[in-house]
Amino acid sequence: MEKGRLLYEGKAKQLFATEDENILFVSYKDSATAFNGEKKEEIAGKGILNNKITTILFDQLKKHGIDSHFVEQISENEQLVRKVEIIPLEVVVRNIAAGSLAKRLGIGEGTALKHSIVELYYKDDTLGDPLLTDAHLTLLELATPEEIETIKTKALEINKVLQPIFKEIGVTLIDMKLEFGRTTNGEILLADEISPDTCRLWDDATNNKLDKDVFRRNLGSLTDVYEIILSRLGGLLK
Amino acid sequence: MEKGRLLYEGKAKQLFATEDENILFVSYKDSATAFNGEKKEEIAGKGILNNKITTILFDQLKKHGIDSHFVEQISENEQLVRKVEIIPLEVVVRNIAAGSLAKRLGIGEGTALKHSIVELYYKDDTLGDPLLTDAHLTLLELATPEEIETIKTKALEINKVLQPIFKEIGVTLIDMKLEFGRTTNGEILLADEISPDTCRLWDDATNNKLDKDVFRRNLGSLTDVYEIILSRLGGLLK
Repeated sequence: MEKGRLLYEGKAKQLFATEDENILFVSYKDSATAFNGEKKEEIAGKGILNNKITTILFDQLKKHGIDSHFVEQISENEQLVRKVEIIPLEVVVRNIAAGSLAKRLGIGEGTALKHSIVELYYKDDTLGDPLLTDAHLTLLELATPEEIETIKTKALEINKVLQPIFKEIGVTLIDMKLEFGRTTNGEILLADEISPDTCRLWDDATNNKLDKDVFRRNLGSLTDVYEIILSRLGGLLK
Repeated sequence: MEKGRLLYEGKAKQLFATEDENILFVSYKDSATAFNGEKKEEIAGKGILNNKITTILFDQLKKHGIDSHFVEQISENEQLVRKVEIIPLEVVVRNIAAGSLAKRLGIGEGTALKHSIVELYYKDDTLGDPLLTDAHLTLLELATPEEIETIKTKALEINKVLQPIFKEIGVTLIDMKLEFGRTTNGEILLADEISPDTCRLWDDATNNKLDKDVFRRNLGSLTDVYEIILSRLGGLLK
């Protein structure tokens, strides 16, 4: 596959065309951003780590019968994915209270939720990615009510597969942000990435944060903790 | 009915016991507050106006088959109500984009919504009255899922009754905040007040705001515009 023209550049990835109109070329960047882009840094090696971790997790999901846009890893920091029309929703699954949920509901960080929940945020930097209710979604029409239901169901299924995978490597999946896309035949497909950039992962032994909160809250070296996740998942650092 | 001991004091009203344990005595205060209590002022006559306007609107709702906690007006600024256990939700019905919805979704103020929507906010000053999704509500258990559905349905019914009542007096009901309570036999009942403190009301002829936004945004005399609403609704100022 040849890398064609740049189609889209986000905060953490670039998307390029390929000679197959249904396949895109994803390049993981070394940029780390937080607080809606207010905090920003280049961190050498981050792109490679997230590419490798996402590859492992999308492969694992596939083995458990959950498809994603992922096709194959083709270099240290690049992968091929199916082209989908991204639905502009940040789909957040939460198992343990942390971050904005802890603040919103006044629940202490680290408190286990009675059951996992899904929140939908409008992926719109200008608006600050606001939380949306089902009623808001009927106004915005970003997806049909059936698509919204599919997204919520799939998000909880993905969470059910990933929780034990992380548990096995001594890590608790606190919460994660997923994105979904629409294929040309209207199927809802998991897209984007699943990595310590998009998950909160806490070490079961030490309670240390092994995710982007290390960057958000200045808790140490981001690549050090991402490397822990990659190697525990069985990935090769080099 | 004798006014007994003070049971509760809110930003705009005091609740007193009476000799009937099922009946409370409500006294409307002259305090105006906004922005979660950050802006505060005493405005002589406000309590009387809201008591009278709420009386008219609860009476009108009753005539249209919608019960509330309202029993009767007993003085210029006092009324008797049925005792209910207030469900700590601010139930917001919106017909036209304004305030926080306009900001949240990036819809221009004054834009008619495709359909009326209901939003639920957690009535908790410490948390800043956060917006809640259905998933949050399953965690907080402020009400059963059935009660939540009843509240949403009733809120839309109340809106359907009030919209033409306001339209007839040349006013558009932009949005409003309702509160509901639980009676001793578990019935969900409309409670609190319905007044220019809790509704956005725009004059159809001039587009002027005839509600608490006059206070929030320093647009003139609050009692002047509340008097317009009361007199157009057929109420007596003195």
